[in-house]
Amino acid sequence: MRNVVSLLFLCVLLASLSDRAFGDEGMWLFNNPPLKQLKEKYQFEPTPQWLEHLQKSSVRFNSGGSGSFVSPNGLCITNHHVGLDTLQKISSEKKNYARDGFYAKSQKDEMKATDLELNVLMSIEDVTDRVKGAVKPEMSADDANKARGNVIAEIEKESREKTGLRSDVITLYQGGQYHLYRYKRYDDVRLVFAPEEQIAFYGGDPDNFEYPRFDLDICIFRAYENGQPAKIDNYLKWNTKGPADGELTFVSGNPGRTDRQLAVSELAELRDGEVPYLLNMFYRRETFLHAWGARSFENKRRAEQATRSVENNRKRYDGYVAGLLDPDVWRAIEDRQKKLAGAQGVSPLFDKIKQAQQETAKVLPIYHYFEQFRGRAQADYRAPRAFSSTLFQYARRLLRHGDEMTKPNGERFPEFRDSYKESLELELFSSQPVYDDFEIVKLSDSLTDMTTRFGADDPLVKQVLAGKSPVDRATELVSRTKLKDIAFRKQLYTGGASAVSAAKDPMIELARMVDGPARDARKVYEAQDEIKQQAYAEIAQARFAMEGTSNYPDATFTLRLSYGTVRGYEENGKPVPALTNTSGLYQRGAEHKNQPPFDIPKRWLDRKSKLNPNTPFNFVSDADIIGGNSGSPVVNKAGEFVGIIFDGNIQSLVLDCIFTDKQARAVSVDSAAIIEALRDVYDAQPLVDELTGAK
Amino acid sequence: MRNVVSLLFLCVLLASLSDRAFGDEGMWLFNNPPLKQLKEKYQFEPTPQWLEHLQKSSVRFNSGGSGSFVSPNGLCITNHHVGLDTLQKISSEKKNYARDGFYAKSQKDEMKATDLELNVLMSIEDVTDRVKGAVKPEMSADDANKARGNVIAEIEKESREKTGLRSDVITLYQGGQYHLYRYKRYDDVRLVFAPEEQIAFYGGDPDNFEYPRFDLDICIFRAYENGQPAKIDNYLKWNTKGPADGELTFVSGNPGRTDRQLAVSELAELRDGEVPYLLNMFYRRETFLHAWGARSFENKRRAEQATRSVENNRKRYDGYVAGLLDPDVWRAIEDRQKKLAGAQGVSPLFDKIKQAQQETAKVLPIYHYFEQFRGRAQADYRAPRAFSSTLFQYARRLLRHGDEMTKPNGERFPEFRDSYKESLELELFSSQPVYDDFEIVKLSDSLTDMTTRFGADDPLVKQVLAGKSPVDRATELVSRTKLKDIAFRKQLYTGGASAVSAAKDPMIELARMVDGPARDARKVYEAQDEIKQQAYAEIAQARFAMEGTSNYPDATFTLRLSYGTVRGYEENGKPVPALTNTSGLYQRGAEHKNQPPFDIPKRWLDRKSKLNPNTPFNFVSDADIIGGNSGSPVVNKAGEFVGIIFDGNIQSLVLDCIFTDKQARAVSVDSAAIIEALRDVYDAQPLVDELTGAK
Repeated sequence: MRNVVSLLFLCVLLASLSDRAFGDEGMWLFNNPPLKQLKEKYQFEPTPQWLEHLQKSSVRFNSGGSGSFVSPNGLCITNHHVGLDTLQKISSEKKNYARDGFYAKSQKDEMKATDLELNVLMSIEDVTDRVKGAVKPEMSADDANKARGNVIAEIEKESREKTGLRSDVITLYQGGQYHLYRYKRYDDVRLVFAPEEQIAFYGGDPDNFEYPRFDLDICIFRAYENGQPAKIDNYLKWNTKGPADGELTFVSGNPGRTDRQLAVSELAELRDGEVPYLLNMFYRRETFLHAWGARSFENKRRAEQATRSVENNRKRYDGYVAGLLDPDVWRAIEDRQKKLAGAQGVSPLFDKIKQAQQETAKVLPIYHYFEQFRGRAQADYRAPRAFSSTLFQYARRLLRHGDEMTKPNGERFPEFRDSYKESLELELFSSQPVYDDFEIVKLSDSLTDMTTRFGADDPLVKQVLAGKSPVDRATELVSRTKLKDIAFRKQLYTGGASAVSAAKDPMIELARMVDGPARDARKVYEAQDEIKQQAYAEIAQARFAMEGTSNYPDATFTLRLSYGTVRGYEENGKPVPALTNTSGLYQRGAEHKNQPPFDIPKRWLDRKSKLNPNTPFNFVSDADIIGGNSGSPVVNKAGEFVGIIFDGNIQSLVLDCIFTDKQARAVSVDSAAIIEALRDVYDAQPLVDELTGAK
Repeated sequence: MRNVVSLLFLCVLLASLSDRAFGDEGMWLFNNPPLKQLKEKYQFEPTPQWLEHLQKSSVRFNSGGSGSFVSPNGLCITNHHVGLDTLQKISSEKKNYARDGFYAKSQKDEMKATDLELNVLMSIEDVTDRVKGAVKPEMSADDANKARGNVIAEIEKESREKTGLRSDVITLYQGGQYHLYRYKRYDDVRLVFAPEEQIAFYGGDPDNFEYPRFDLDICIFRAYENGQPAKIDNYLKWNTKGPADGELTFVSGNPGRTDRQLAVSELAELRDGEVPYLLNMFYRRETFLHAWGARSFENKRRAEQATRSVENNRKRYDGYVAGLLDPDVWRAIEDRQKKLAGAQGVSPLFDKIKQAQQETAKVLPIYHYFEQFRGRAQADYRAPRAFSSTLFQYARRLLRHGDEMTKPNGERFPEFRDSYKESLELELFSSQPVYDDFEIVKLSDSLTDMTTRFGADDPLVKQVLAGKSPVDRATELVSRTKLKDIAFRKQLYTGGASAVSAAKDPMIELARMVDGPARDARKVYEAQDEIKQQAYAEIAQARFAMEGTSNYPDATFTLRLSYGTVRGYEENGKPVPALTNTSGLYQRGAEHKNQPPFDIPKRWLDRKSKLNPNTPFNFVSDADIIGGNSGSPVVNKAGEFVGIIFDGNIQSLVLDCIFTDKQARAVSVDSAAIIEALRDVYDAQPLVDELTGAK
């Protein structure tokens, strides 16, 4: 086996940075899996049943991540950092589950999440013809966009009414194909187990995106239906040994977004514009979150999830920019396009895209600051940069809900269409705590950011600040709004536009004040996006003609299958082994004098003698993953759970735009370490029994 | 006394944010002290001897700060954070004086600084007429600038040759006056005492610019001459009790830069452009310094001074922007200008300034990234933003030294004129350690910053990166340059342009590559600055005509006298007392469970019982100070040392552009706490004896 791997390593090294699916490249659709590649390279032929079982065992978290069912009674495992959003929301000054962990010894102790939704992909249907058929060549970009929106809303609504399932039409290949995804939703989700953050995120930000690692980055929930643990037909069988070095493994999860089919001009804009722009926001926010968090333990607790998220994004995008600035990477990107551009009629399509970028650029600042700060991927909807505030988000949704509901379903913004109703309500009526002080500092900072971006004399800025300094304005808005009250939110939601208007709530009035400019910018943005989408769809046809339709589309935070070998790599001339073990954890703690973020939790120090030093802890494989894959199960050929993805190494950050497996690796927690930790560190034998099927 | 203070408080509150020297406003020239104000408000009339003694006891640190002589044998006290630059440079992986502190039990143990220069202001001469006389009205901006440069160089050179003293012509009132300052230089300076950083910077970044405080922010050096402790005639007598609440005190130090006479259009540019621009650099650098520093103890040590400096600047400029965005502050700024603009012929001058700003704006990005990142104040010369590297600074200085020395003295850049020779050599031949790894990460980051600012396809960016990624280019430059070697630097300095050229050192070649664009941008910048300076000089005349010449000019990192009362203030409706004491320190540690940055050093915990809990620790006064005043002595009416400035509170950050004493306060270490700490915590009785004159 070792020889085969070495030989493969060489081939793969030579093939790296190529534009074709060499190596273990690909985030494949479950309805178009890499059967040929698996057969040729690994002599493995998964059956349709094998694939269906894995698909239906896989879970998407609406908080942005992946997971899998691992028991017939609804146990669902994900990462601690995916569960963190919930851990934070159910914690208080007195009980800090995010930091200290949690274990429900019995079912009645399981704690309900405030607004967590799990989605299981039940079926996929190709609706390309129907969607494309609705758009006529003679239509203007605006009309085309409307027509497409209408037909998509129609398909989603029909499907939902027919099946009762959440139904989303997904745009694939940048508009080359449209597939209808039907999901079973779970919105009664309860926390069963989380370790201390200290071991879940061992090594902290310094070790994030690094390897070797020693993180128990797991969190276990249970899905409920009708007040009872959900009965789950498709769940993964637990393998207590973990994978061997050199073993073929599979990853089934929801990669968030890749840019591998993007035009060079769009990648250049990402490199020189959008990503640096995002980074300067992340630098700014990280700095203020650290400073505010350091003032007291309670500040730190309140800011924890936001801080972690910002740190993670900052490091991720820093790595992405570094990748885009690598001349080898850029050459490969250019070569990829050159090949395509050679095809008949393709070159002008790239020019069209460039033209659309220029038009979009005119409204981008308003779009980012007042509409949303990034728009390309569906999963990436976020608060506008000027208003970093949960209360503002409530205000905008209620305002727009009132306005949008007066329109026919197909003409609404997608987030207000009937098919998203339950998800919208789950978010809007969340019982998550909202802290005035944290809201005020976040909003003050983002209002200041807005003011320095457009200048204090800008008319819109002046209107937003209403003659006050950013901090005074933020204080006034947060302390006077009534949106912290769930009953009030429900009342405005039910009452619609007239109730929203009558409320005269200051935060809603702010949302109303910027709604015109925000909608205008979004309109331009979407019209130009329509032009791009049409061009990309044609480019996709050219690609299909050259390569067949057997390739995979860019990631869209929907379920994909990746595969790869457990294997180490070389860094600075030294080998980095594929697997770490428990003894390595203690060694790393000692090297850093057990100082944060390398301090080992007390419980782990106390139980050291009970643990097998040779138990594999974390491992890397060359599977093709990206952000959103966090929490994805890693399974072996038998379809057994052997680990859980929680990170990529720093060399993997370039995977956003191009595949390489020279050094890029996916990082997982080993299934063996999880079982040993639950049993010997957390005394959670009943949970072990349930996971391993002993009970 | 209390009643008087309360009454004053009320007056002062009403007068705050006014444009006149109400309250205890003013950073006064020693040759134009606020005698009238002191007499009227405090019935105090300092004698010329009193003033001369204070002036000559005061010390400027070239590392950016102030201090004072406190013994006849050259003891000079400043802040730990002013001494930090030296503490960092004389430390190593094995001996971390910055973190752990230092005490030389005997004179032979005192440790020589690598490149510290102290300046004592010996005399001031008004040379306005001679400087202004050299500039003729018919001259172009470029010629006027040259003519002024020439006459200044001439005056400086004459003075230096005549007196042997460092001679600097200082531009005051934005060009309204020119004064010749003669300094005695000390460049053999040795470290005597520093406490642990943990107590010097107690509360860390969270408590920086906050109050109440508990910081022993001191560092004690000794000046040497001819290998012996310098004999000092003018030094401050130590008062071991510290000041009383309500007492009048004086601050003598070197405030760095204020913008109080700036045109509204320039302040608007600071608010919307320059300061946000600086902040986005600080956010970026703070983030990467934290991330890199967290990876190992040694990284943290190497990055410590840089990190502290960036954190401090970030917080300072955040506060400044917040001040500028306060509508009350802005109204006062506008009113200030409106009054002046009413005078005959003044309005067009403000238009001229605006016009010059627009011209400058065209070259600003190149100026900041390739020449220096801020240029208005002399003390603010810093590395260009694209090249954050000590080695690049050496490279540029050597390159330019070679080129500039071929020109007549008056036509060189000021930093290469004869009068700065010794200071230049001290910096250039410093034995400070330069770490390859730290240089590489700093340079990689700033090259990336440059690339994302101008775009990867920019021709100058491409030339700088030479076909490599930022990290590869930084690695190549740092590992191949020979500039780490002092002997090599000396050789190129002595050999001049031909030796520099022959060396073909990669870092110098980089400096040469960008020298043309950098010089071009500087030329435009300075020509426009000349136009501004002429306009401001005329505006100053109008101001003198309205107010007399009895006001103070904006700060210029030269010696100034401020005065103020020790007094608390009100915040969020609660009184903040003027003085803290030792018991408060222990209380704050307990509140924060002794966790960093609120952990009390072990030595302080051990000695707690020896300390008087009521000893005053820190205090605030309403003296008018700003960055650069750090380390300034606070003296009482008897001219005795009662404390040392180390910070301003957050409300004082607006003092950059306007005076207010409603809440703005200067924060000092109490002289009583210093003596008690030296004696009872650090067992430094001999030092106490020397400071108090007991020996």
